[in-house]
Amino acid sequence: MKTVARSSLLALALVLSLCLSLAFAWRDVEEEVGWRRGQEGGREEWGKGQSSSEGGRPYHFGEESFREWARTRHGHFKVLERFDDELLRGSVGDYRVACLDAAPRAFLQPSHYDADEIFYVKEGEGVLVVLRKGRRESFCVREGDVMVIPAGSIVYSANTHRSKWLRVVMLLNPVATPGSFEEFFPVGGEGPNSFFSAFSDQVLQAAFNSRREEVEKVFEGQRKREIWQASEEQIRELSRSCSRGGRGGGSSGSSKEEEIKPRSLPSQKPLYSNKHGRMHMITGDECRHLRDLDMEVGIANITRGSMLAPRYTTRATKIAVVVEGSGYFEMACPHKTDSSRRAERQERSEHSREEEGEQQQKKSRGYRQVRAQIKEGSVIVLPAGHPATFVAGNEGNLAVICFGVGSSNDEEVFLTGGNSLLKQLDAPAKTLVFGEQGREAADRVIGAQTESVFLAGPQQQQRGGGSVSDM
Amino acid sequence: MKTVARSSLLALALVLSLCLSLAFAWRDVEEEVGWRRGQEGGREEWGKGQSSSEGGRPYHFGEESFREWARTRHGHFKVLERFDDELLRGSVGDYRVACLDAAPRAFLQPSHYDADEIFYVKEGEGVLVVLRKGRRESFCVREGDVMVIPAGSIVYSANTHRSKWLRVVMLLNPVATPGSFEEFFPVGGEGPNSFFSAFSDQVLQAAFNSRREEVEKVFEGQRKREIWQASEEQIRELSRSCSRGGRGGGSSGSSKEEEIKPRSLPSQKPLYSNKHGRMHMITGDECRHLRDLDMEVGIANITRGSMLAPRYTTRATKIAVVVEGSGYFEMACPHKTDSSRRAERQERSEHSREEEGEQQQKKSRGYRQVRAQIKEGSVIVLPAGHPATFVAGNEGNLAVICFGVGSSNDEEVFLTGGNSLLKQLDAPAKTLVFGEQGREAADRVIGAQTESVFLAGPQQQQRGGGSVSDM
Amino acid sequence: MKTVARSSLLALALVLSLCLSLAFAWRDVEEEVGWRRGQEGGREEWGKGQSSSEGGRPYHFGEESFREWARTRHGHFKVLERFDDELLRGSVGDYRVACLDAAPRAFLQPSHYDADEIFYVKEGEGVLVVLRKGRRESFCVREGDVMVIPAGSIVYSANTHRSKWLRVVMLLNPVATPGSFEEFFPVGGEGPNSFFSAFSDQVLQAAFNSRREEVEKVFEGQRKREIWQASEEQIRELSRSCSRGGRGGGSSGSSKEEEIKPRSLPSQKPLYSNKHGRMHMITGDECRHLRDLDMEVGIANITRGSMLAPRYTTRATKIAVVVEGSGYFEMACPHKTDSSRRAERQERSEHSREEEGEQQQKKSRGYRQVRAQIKEGSVIVLPAGHPATFVAGNEGNLAVICFGVGSSNDEEVFLTGGNSLLKQLDAPAKTLVFGEQGREAADRVIGAQTESVFLAGPQQQQRGGGSVSDM
Repeated sequence: MKTVARSSLLALALVLSLCLSLAFAWRDVEEEVGWRRGQEGGREEWGKGQSSSEGGRPYHFGEESFREWARTRHGHFKVLERFDDELLRGSVGDYRVACLDAAPRAFLQPSHYDADEIFYVKEGEGVLVVLRKGRRESFCVREGDVMVIPAGSIVYSANTHRSKWLRVVMLLNPVATPGSFEEFFPVGGEGPNSFFSAFSDQVLQAAFNSRREEVEKVFEGQRKREIWQASEEQIRELSRSCSRGGRGGGSSGSSKEEEIKPRSLPSQKPLYSNKHGRMHMITGDECRHLRDLDMEVGIANITRGSMLAPRYTTRATKIAVVVEGSGYFEMACPHKTDSSRRAERQERSEHSREEEGEQQQKKSRGYRQVRAQIKEGSVIVLPAGHPATFVAGNEGNLAVICFGVGSSNDEEVFLTGGNSLLKQLDAPAKTLVFGEQGREAADRVIGAQTESVFLAGPQQQQRGGGSVSDM
Repeated sequence: MKTVARSSLLALALVLSLCLSLAFAWRDVEEEVGWRRGQEGGREEWGKGQSSSEGGRPYHFGEESFREWARTRHGHFKVLERFDDELLRGSVGDYRVACLDAAPRAFLQPSHYDADEIFYVKEGEGVLVVLRKGRRESFCVREGDVMVIPAGSIVYSANTHRSKWLRVVMLLNPVATPGSFEEFFPVGGEGPNSFFSAFSDQVLQAAFNSRREEVEKVFEGQRKREIWQASEEQIRELSRSCSRGGRGGGSSGSSKEEEIKPRSLPSQKPLYSNKHGRMHMITGDECRHLRDLDMEVGIANITRGSMLAPRYTTRATKIAVVVEGSGYFEMACPHKTDSSRRAERQERSEHSREEEGEQQQKKSRGYRQVRAQIKEGSVIVLPAGHPATFVAGNEGNLAVICFGVGSSNDEEVFLTGGNSLLKQLDAPAKTLVFGEQGREAADRVIGAQTESVFLAGPQQQQRGGGSVSDM
Repeated sequence: MKTVARSSLLALALVLSLCLSLAFAWRDVEEEVGWRRGQEGGREEWGKGQSSSEGGRPYHFGEESFREWARTRHGHFKVLERFDDELLRGSVGDYRVACLDAAPRAFLQPSHYDADEIFYVKEGEGVLVVLRKGRRESFCVREGDVMVIPAGSIVYSANTHRSKWLRVVMLLNPVATPGSFEEFFPVGGEGPNSFFSAFSDQVLQAAFNSRREEVEKVFEGQRKREIWQASEEQIRELSRSCSRGGRGGGSSGSSKEEEIKPRSLPSQKPLYSNKHGRMHMITGDECRHLRDLDMEVGIANITRGSMLAPRYTTRATKIAVVVEGSGYFEMACPHKTDSSRRAERQERSEHSREEEGEQQQKKSRGYRQVRAQIKEGSVIVLPAGHPATFVAGNEGNLAVICFGVGSSNDEEVFLTGGNSLLKQLDAPAKTLVFGEQGREAADRVIGAQTESVFLAGPQQQQRGGGSVSDM
């Protein structure tokens, strides 16, 4: 009897103990799984491109990776998850990508970010009012514009079109907490709140030299949401003084150097252009604020069915956002990248060096394919040095806006086509690398593509002709 | 019987197992608690300022957050814990705050730091000798001085006053290990040791070309502590050649550009000044060493009972140290800041997106109040973009020294008063934001405070007059 | 019976539970041990140099810390483990050290890194062809040369000597992922692969405008390894157009500013030189690429049996690699460094502050000796501010190449010898620090060493003479 009782007690305790143990075990398993997920696609694939990193992880982000910060009937603002994969954190982990969609005549409440904002107008037109350095500037923005808004500027804006949506893609550079930014609304109510609501009554009363009821009514009693709809008349009023040069609003005294203003990306002289596509770029040379951020912004418009020649950047990491069309991208990632961590851990454990050296030897010099279907809203990170390409689908042109982070002294290196860097291999090197017999074939292959940068795509090859016409 | 025995064994094993389980559970709970503590105050508070972040965590640090590195009868040197909260690490985590208090005629042994030192003389006067670039410079410093001592300089100093303490507040910028610095004493004994004690006898003997006994006696046999007291005569001798321009000591050849010297903060033309307070600032324009550190140093002297208008910085994060008086500070922190981490974690688990979107919607745009009583020695971190204010107590003026980290292109934005940026809202925006009816009230509230930057405080309102006189 | 059955079940469950618990316990113990290992040598040693940090951890790395990335019969390329100890990560954690050894007439396949490469030719001679900015430059390099190859450049090279090995030491500055870099081969086969192998057949075919079989044969069908041997004739061909100024290869148009070229370190005017050694340095003033990297490269040649005077750098952290000879180094590390972490953790637990203050007091100002035997291939990290010395063995000269990271405004401070900064102590300070009685002895010891920078070593003292001759 006593035994049974004790056993019952034991059973109870045991269940408790087991639960606790399992809880930890579970946590562990989860971590393990999470880790594996982060590394997925990197293991089995040793052949050539047959299988590829599923979904392009961790370099590709689809719609599901965005989170809505604000959604009203008149628009929404969504922010991409942090770039916190080990492979990305060091190069782009401090930045965030966000998208804003504003309905016709939508008005966005005044607010400031603790982040610099670099934005591209994907679609539509609007008015943007920026309060900073003690004054107001009012800008008319339209499709194709790039603009930098320095951190801490108070901004309000509106879609000035009667029927078209205004769509904006932005990169944010947080200044207070790397990789994390916040929005601050001076005027609010239920949602958003006013940041004044966080101050005590006495402080507000003294700060405004007004009765607290009045302050509250004005700053905290508004029932407008982050994004709501203004009347046509109100929009007209608001956009009356807007300009392209930031000289509106009766303000003055801003030096040329400090000037912020929208710059039309498609109006820039194209860096490259042919029937397969064109590329426009705004660099730090044209815009001091981009220079301060060590950043450049470019757009690649790839004609439907065409492709960008495989290329890599020497220093910049590109954050690319698809703003039009669909297609796919492919990138070569050194296989070591995802096994090296593990290998380095093993290295510290008791594996014999001999064994490891050989293993390493086998592992170290392979590349896995990272590939994903992309469409409007897809985000792709292209790290420096990694060869990659975009291919436009057959339904329409593919347009990709690229924020180049760490762009000073950067160079884009093309690997096929008229400006392929491989054409610079000298004769003795070719003989060495390809062999006496292979050299001729190499010359033929390296020289066969006569277009540069933008090329006929896989589906166009048969028509586009060249040496494959005999296929 | 057998059963009983086995059960006993089981019981023993079970106890063991439970202990282990609990050990982990406990660790987990602790972590959880630690985490909660770091986030404390951020959850319950949804009303307006009724409850607030207890103690201002993690932005406020009281006396208990300092650790004594050296304490003798003649002074002490204490260092603030690292800024290692997730919310601070990225902006100010590389820096350390420290305070030195030296009794009358205290002498501080020669030493160097592996950190740049930016200091402010809070009280008293002293002589400071800096050995660097192969030469010696001797400076007289006094209350209100700011000075930068480049990392690696060998420094010794003394309180030159007969009866007053010398008190110094300093910010340290470690150059070897971010957020961590060390002090190196060439001469020592029991405490501090000489760093020469870490070298072997043979090395020391050869390095000094002297017998090891002699080297030991000279460098390692001194019984002086880090801080001890010199005679009046010795202090007089030491301060004989000190100057304000760093030209003492018979040295020469330093370019203007490289010059280090004390700069009197109160002697700078005030940036703002009225009966409620004044602000002085030294920036990189005046001091190359500050410019190299991307830093500026300012002091806000707030008249007793007065306040600083709610304001934020656009880029710089301010590390503020109260050097005189008492009062309190309030800051608005986006509520998301402390829930977002959790939300982002949840995001990865199986919560339905719908639900989350809504939750997020409700959460994302609130602000919590961070507030704390402050007094001499309190340290407050004000991140870029976060609206905050200081209010002086009624016992005396409140003086706050502010180290602005990341200050290039920074702007201070005031939110109430004569220079409130909100005054720049244009007429159509006001109508949109406050409504046709509310606009007049908004104009009244925004215009009611005619003072700028320094304002009558909560307790002065009744007297100070304005629209609250009818209260 | 029932009881027994239940107990059996219990026993089973218990074993399971225990196993799980122990699994976690074990993980914990491992972590603990790992941590201790990282901190080893830092605890027991309180005496003067009797015992020291075993093996110089974590500042010293021997051969076993390298990992082979490629090894063929004709050479190998090995990379040092990451600097991921907490004490190093912040200063040098972004960099990697690597060594290349190439047999006579070895040829290295074309490839690019996602890292800047700063290299020093330790031994031998070679030809180096760099493809970048759309053109080719061909350089003859030889023993003693330093050169910077910007990230993303495609490089191929060969040992041009018939019988001598070419040995190169390099520092890599990863641009995509801090502390981690990859090599990208355009042409390959079994090992290395070509990065083109990661692209799909359709993409390759379109990109090259060639049949996929041809592309595959040319780029992915080569059976050459990373390092193989060329014929004398091929080497001659390859090096025909190489130059010292980078003007070979028929290219043009590179501005002086952008120029990359080998610079002979021993041909630089020595910074210091005497019979005990000499030091040469290339700084950002001579090479824009080094300036961009905030780096300088120097070599210390210490005569056999001689030593470098104990010194520290004010800002730069030095990564030193022994390129010739053997000997040892000693460095003084503040003991706090390795106990502070623990102390800071304890600080948060319930230790009484009183107790801790005292503990701290005792602990904070000691230094431990870090010391290790070094030989060709040893890597030593010397953090800013830490006094350290090198002593050459008696078998031959000791040559150490030093990469100075974070070198702008850096100064090297010597602590003994003719240019000891301690000589700048003024008379009153000496009286204060050493006492009236001790001052004379101090002057004698500080003045006894008349050589500067490079000194007679421990074994030479008796002969070299000076005040120790009476020993």
